[in-house]
Amino acid sequence: MTEKKTALIVSAHAADFVWRCGGAIALHAELGYNVTVACLSYGERGESARLWKEGKTLDEVKSIRKSEAEAAAKALGVHDLVEFDLGDYPMDFTRDDRMKLVQVMRDVQPSFMMSHSRWDPYNSDHMNTTQIVLECRATAQAWGHNPGEKVLGAPQVYLFEPHQTEQMGWKPSVFLDITPVWEKKKAAMEAMNGQVHLWEYYTRVAQQRANHFKRNSGGMSGGRDCKYAEGFESIFPRTVDEL
Amino acid sequence: MTEKKTALIVSAHAADFVWRCGGAIALHAELGYNVTVACLSYGERGESARLWKEGKTLDEVKSIRKSEAEAAAKALGVHDLVEFDLGDYPMDFTRDDRMKLVQVMRDVQPSFMMSHSRWDPYNSDHMNTTQIVLECRATAQAWGHNPGEKVLGAPQVYLFEPHQTEQMGWKPSVFLDITPVWEKKKAAMEAMNGQVHLWEYYTRVAQQRANHFKRNSGGMSGGRDCKYAEGFESIFPRTVDEL
Amino acid sequence: MTEKKTALIVSAHAADFVWRCGGAIALHAELGYNVTVACLSYGERGESARLWKEGKTLDEVKSIRKSEAEAAAKALGVHDLVEFDLGDYPMDFTRDDRMKLVQVMRDVQPSFMMSHSRWDPYNSDHMNTTQIVLECRATAQAWGHNPGEKVLGAPQVYLFEPHQTEQMGWKPSVFLDITPVWEKKKAAMEAMNGQVHLWEYYTRVAQQRANHFKRNSGGMSGGRDCKYAEGFESIFPRTVDEL
Amino acid sequence: MTEKKTALIVSAHAADFVWRCGGAIALHAELGYNVTVACLSYGERGESARLWKEGKTLDEVKSIRKSEAEAAAKALGVHDLVEFDLGDYPMDFTRDDRMKLVQVMRDVQPSFMMSHSRWDPYNSDHMNTTQIVLECRATAQAWGHNPGEKVLGAPQVYLFEPHQTEQMGWKPSVFLDITPVWEKKKAAMEAMNGQVHLWEYYTRVAQQRANHFKRNSGGMSGGRDCKYAEGFESIFPRTVDEL
Amino acid sequence: MTEKKTALIVSAHAADFVWRCGGAIALHAELGYNVTVACLSYGERGESARLWKEGKTLDEVKSIRKSEAEAAAKALGVHDLVEFDLGDYPMDFTRDDRMKLVQVMRDVQPSFMMSHSRWDPYNSDHMNTTQIVLECRATAQAWGHNPGEKVLGAPQVYLFEPHQTEQMGWKPSVFLDITPVWEKKKAAMEAMNGQVHLWEYYTRVAQQRANHFKRNSGGMSGGRDCKYAEGFESIFPRTVDEL
Amino acid sequence: MTEKKTALIVSAHAADFVWRCGGAIALHAELGYNVTVACLSYGERGESARLWKEGKTLDEVKSIRKSEAEAAAKALGVHDLVEFDLGDYPMDFTRDDRMKLVQVMRDVQPSFMMSHSRWDPYNSDHMNTTQIVLECRATAQAWGHNPGEKVLGAPQVYLFEPHQTEQMGWKPSVFLDITPVWEKKKAAMEAMNGQVHLWEYYTRVAQQRANHFKRNSGGMSGGRDCKYAEGFESIFPRTVDEL
Repeated sequence: MTEKKTALIVSAHAADFVWRCGGAIALHAELGYNVTVACLSYGERGESARLWKEGKTLDEVKSIRKSEAEAAAKALGVHDLVEFDLGDYPMDFTRDDRMKLVQVMRDVQPSFMMSHSRWDPYNSDHMNTTQIVLECRATAQAWGHNPGEKVLGAPQVYLFEPHQTEQMGWKPSVFLDITPVWEKKKAAMEAMNGQVHLWEYYTRVAQQRANHFKRNSGGMSGGRDCKYAEGFESIFPRTVDEL
Repeated sequence: MTEKKTALIVSAHAADFVWRCGGAIALHAELGYNVTVACLSYGERGESARLWKEGKTLDEVKSIRKSEAEAAAKALGVHDLVEFDLGDYPMDFTRDDRMKLVQVMRDVQPSFMMSHSRWDPYNSDHMNTTQIVLECRATAQAWGHNPGEKVLGAPQVYLFEPHQTEQMGWKPSVFLDITPVWEKKKAAMEAMNGQVHLWEYYTRVAQQRANHFKRNSGGMSGGRDCKYAEGFESIFPRTVDEL
Repeated sequence: MTEKKTALIVSAHAADFVWRCGGAIALHAELGYNVTVACLSYGERGESARLWKEGKTLDEVKSIRKSEAEAAAKALGVHDLVEFDLGDYPMDFTRDDRMKLVQVMRDVQPSFMMSHSRWDPYNSDHMNTTQIVLECRATAQAWGHNPGEKVLGAPQVYLFEPHQTEQMGWKPSVFLDITPVWEKKKAAMEAMNGQVHLWEYYTRVAQQRANHFKRNSGGMSGGRDCKYAEGFESIFPRTVDEL
Repeated sequence: MTEKKTALIVSAHAADFVWRCGGAIALHAELGYNVTVACLSYGERGESARLWKEGKTLDEVKSIRKSEAEAAAKALGVHDLVEFDLGDYPMDFTRDDRMKLVQVMRDVQPSFMMSHSRWDPYNSDHMNTTQIVLECRATAQAWGHNPGEKVLGAPQVYLFEPHQTEQMGWKPSVFLDITPVWEKKKAAMEAMNGQVHLWEYYTRVAQQRANHFKRNSGGMSGGRDCKYAEGFESIFPRTVDEL
Repeated sequence: MTEKKTALIVSAHAADFVWRCGGAIALHAELGYNVTVACLSYGERGESARLWKEGKTLDEVKSIRKSEAEAAAKALGVHDLVEFDLGDYPMDFTRDDRMKLVQVMRDVQPSFMMSHSRWDPYNSDHMNTTQIVLECRATAQAWGHNPGEKVLGAPQVYLFEPHQTEQMGWKPSVFLDITPVWEKKKAAMEAMNGQVHLWEYYTRVAQQRANHFKRNSGGMSGGRDCKYAEGFESIFPRTVDEL
Repeated sequence: MTEKKTALIVSAHAADFVWRCGGAIALHAELGYNVTVACLSYGERGESARLWKEGKTLDEVKSIRKSEAEAAAKALGVHDLVEFDLGDYPMDFTRDDRMKLVQVMRDVQPSFMMSHSRWDPYNSDHMNTTQIVLECRATAQAWGHNPGEKVLGAPQVYLFEPHQTEQMGWKPSVFLDITPVWEKKKAAMEAMNGQVHLWEYYTRVAQQRANHFKRNSGGMSGGRDCKYAEGFESIFPRTVDEL
């Protein structure tokens, strides 16, 4: 536990935290947050097609993906990369796995958390992860779970941008300007060598979201300038003193 | 136009702005906003049952409702109460009526606007108002509408709490703590003599929303104290530099 | 006004009340209700293809459809068939048209009303009718509308079954056993000579809904026997003393 | 099995059946129903913050919660309180647990059942319970499950009111007047000493729902008087002989 | 693996593939597809009420249902009927069960797949099956799952028609004309002796869908003739070179 | 009327048909379709900010926009550009306007039509246009509307891609490969000089949709190559002889 503000990202596969919220991580790290990434798997089976085509073994793939994830985390300024190594496609969660995630939530005491969209017909690992995050959030809030520990408060859960947003029923409620940290996100993406084809894709995502940032900050008359942005959907209502 | 921050509330009937966002008005007035209320009708036909039962004429009802609305507006610190007098149940909008609302939007240049829920099977005036607000917002943003005037930016539109929220498909995305201005909202509600039965109802609404404020600000472990709150649904995404 | 229970059906075109709720009309007539049907048009342009193919003129088509509607109404035991003759495809509603419907609602003081589904991409007349029904219901409830008249209470609005239910987003919340009055519905359908192809279609609809009646009254183990049924979606919550 | 009408409430935690449907239980008990409550856990970990803050042990918390639940059940006139003791936060369901719930359904042969909302991002125990209830309902209907036993019919499943209804996507389809049994619900709530802060909250819920009862039973012109009510969402369509 | 086009149907219970997509199977078989049916259970417990009422044992019921399913498959021209024998009501899926289904997907390499609706409050087996199908599809696409095997492409998943479509939130996006193979579907249905009451029901379903086929192929003016059709909901977007 | 296949695009503002379906137009023109564009306004007030900032008059703006639209239409191979000149922001539709659109539909007898998304809180002109298209489609299908004319069949209505798809509730059901005609779409976009900032935006849209095309045509393992695509949402079900 720390006096610094903290955030917790739960990423089903090694690279999700890079493509989907690398900018948010880097930005909040610069703002002084300790950002922890819970990386549930290396995405070794389902997100490493290039490596498998090259004939790598499972251990080699995992080792390469692990190195890439760690390099990306470093580029983004991640405070702590917690590797669960649950395996992917499919990702099953034992009670122990879930208790471990509860413990991370309690240790980090995040101001906010991030995870995947609620529905993803292309990728059950993603939607199952979000169910588990919500379950673990409730357990971490329970006074009777490991009594004596500091219980979790009520951190917002942001759902980061999935592939093919409309098919996932994902609707962004907030756009974050990540222009100041774009070079860091770019470096992190370039650390993921197995998925080179996604570099340009997620660069364009960030440019389109910047357009949306401008439109929503100022209408057709302009709005605030922004070159790169990320979008997030909030699950819970906000509590404020001024609108 | 002014250097002060501004807000614009569009209220179908005279009392809607009191029950549904009186706290938000009073709070932002205290925060230094000039809050304009566009009151589209006095609610003379549909929301003044007591007066009609007493045998009042239409002119008498309108006059009483007008006085009450003005008293309530004063209690809340409303900067400007713009009375459209469109008639209610049903409320029809001519092109001129809509252009007048566009002009109010341009004159006020609000930081945010407020209106009714999108769907209301009990009250077509409410849902039609919101459609018109969205249409007028787009017209006010158009550079070719009354060229030379300052066009509208992209103010958020908050949908205030309808009666029987679940039937309206209304889901709050933000809770506002109105405890500091509760006495003002109470005074404004008490200015609406024709609807005494609603005083207690909307007091309880504010108390329940305060419970939700606490839960969402701190979970089962407590959260920030709050005695009265109001909830709002945002239509548009926010644009931020920190989550 | 009457001491008898009453119901009001709002049918965009002459035959809608036959196909979609003829059983409910006949059944409630037998139960002692006075059932009024507000028939907004004869469906002369859009639902009389056979007559047009035969070279009939507009007046002839309307006259035939009017006769058929009256014969069907008689077969069902309709108490009052109020013909608005608004024209169809498209159906536009002036303020006078709407005030006339409000008056019918006040005169009838129905225990329940019926109208079309909320959404119908195939048929704007249908969905526009429902919007108008909701608007008129609110006006009829307003104490200041024609003060002195008895205001409308809060009758349920049932949405009767559209064609291609799934495309209309219509979901039945109640199934009504119309077996006892099936012969009357059959006779009414057979009065609609211009749409012979629909007789078998709506007979099968009634048989399928009977299957759903059985399933929902008794599960896989049987349920109450039922040969013909109609389904309806309720807009408003019910209020009860026993579940 | 009994000739009396019966109902079955499935409550994830010890107090849910009190806050969410205590009135329905007491009312139907007075109407002559035997009401069984399947209490899946004591809510010992997640809904007993005060006891944990006082330093109680798990056994002590469970014992206290058990006593409170039994006292509340008695106050409400519960016929049978079946305690599953599955543990909470998270609540996992083995196949044996589910078979036990199936057996309760078959033994009780309820006219209707009750459970939690389908979605609850704050509380996975709640939404998982509803999934299990639906699964067990289907198993209890299967003729090949424990052949020879009387299979379950098709009882309605009412979803009782969750906290923060709009976030759960819960929409009431029926309001029940619980005014005649309010003192019993009040007594049952007061038996739950660990959650004193909820007494006033759920009293206000009942008062707000009474307002909705009135509005839906009679519109703006009055409606039937009602001081306390509970709302429920039906999952299945009803089958009726009169609307 | 084969040069022929292939399809894969995943049917929770023995008869689902007959009622829900028997026409699609027979039609594609005639078109030259090898159609594989993965039959997860015989529906022995939940869909064989008549047999249980006759006092059959579990083994007898399974044996009869197995014979019927095989006869129906033969009538439809099924290429391969893969029997999983997982048991029904409830149907649980071990990791091995899922891996077996992944293997079937890889072996078949289907052009399209079929499964149940996403939501079914009456039948958890159905909706759980669809979740598993989506999960297994993703696993079968993963290059690191059994490396060296041919990975699965991106076959469409069609959801076949459930009972009571509106309650399941199922919306057909495509209608298939099965008139040319109706006699085969009829024969297959008649092979299911335990569910005689469903023969007429699903015949009417096919006739109603034929009406929808006609309406959507040609409007009120006619459309292409069609006597029997089946409807399907697509989960994924199509990719085309002409609209 | 013509023996050639035809399509009809209904575009609220002059440039919508370029950004949103320029590729589909050019592609189908190359495939031999006569593509008609009904351009309801020049987008003179709301989509010409640059021209207004330069001090142009309304007539000048309209004239420039008209020229640009015609140049773009030519670049795309549009067969007929029907200019309605209804004015924009807000766009109101008289009965005559609607009858004119009905006439265009009947004259063109399109194989498919295109219009805007159903919901657009940013742009009422867009969503109102779609309502009118659906209404006019139904009128054009009515045998009694201008009897003697050939009635409209049942053309699919594709909703083209709006800005900020997720906010509009727009979900693509089909992706069209427009790579072969990309240079034509590019030329058409470059004809719209008033909205230079959108050239790059819609280029990226086409590149992202190409990625989705690939993913949906072949999964993670590749899919068919595609450099530029457009996405569309279908309103109506398809009717087919093979899946």
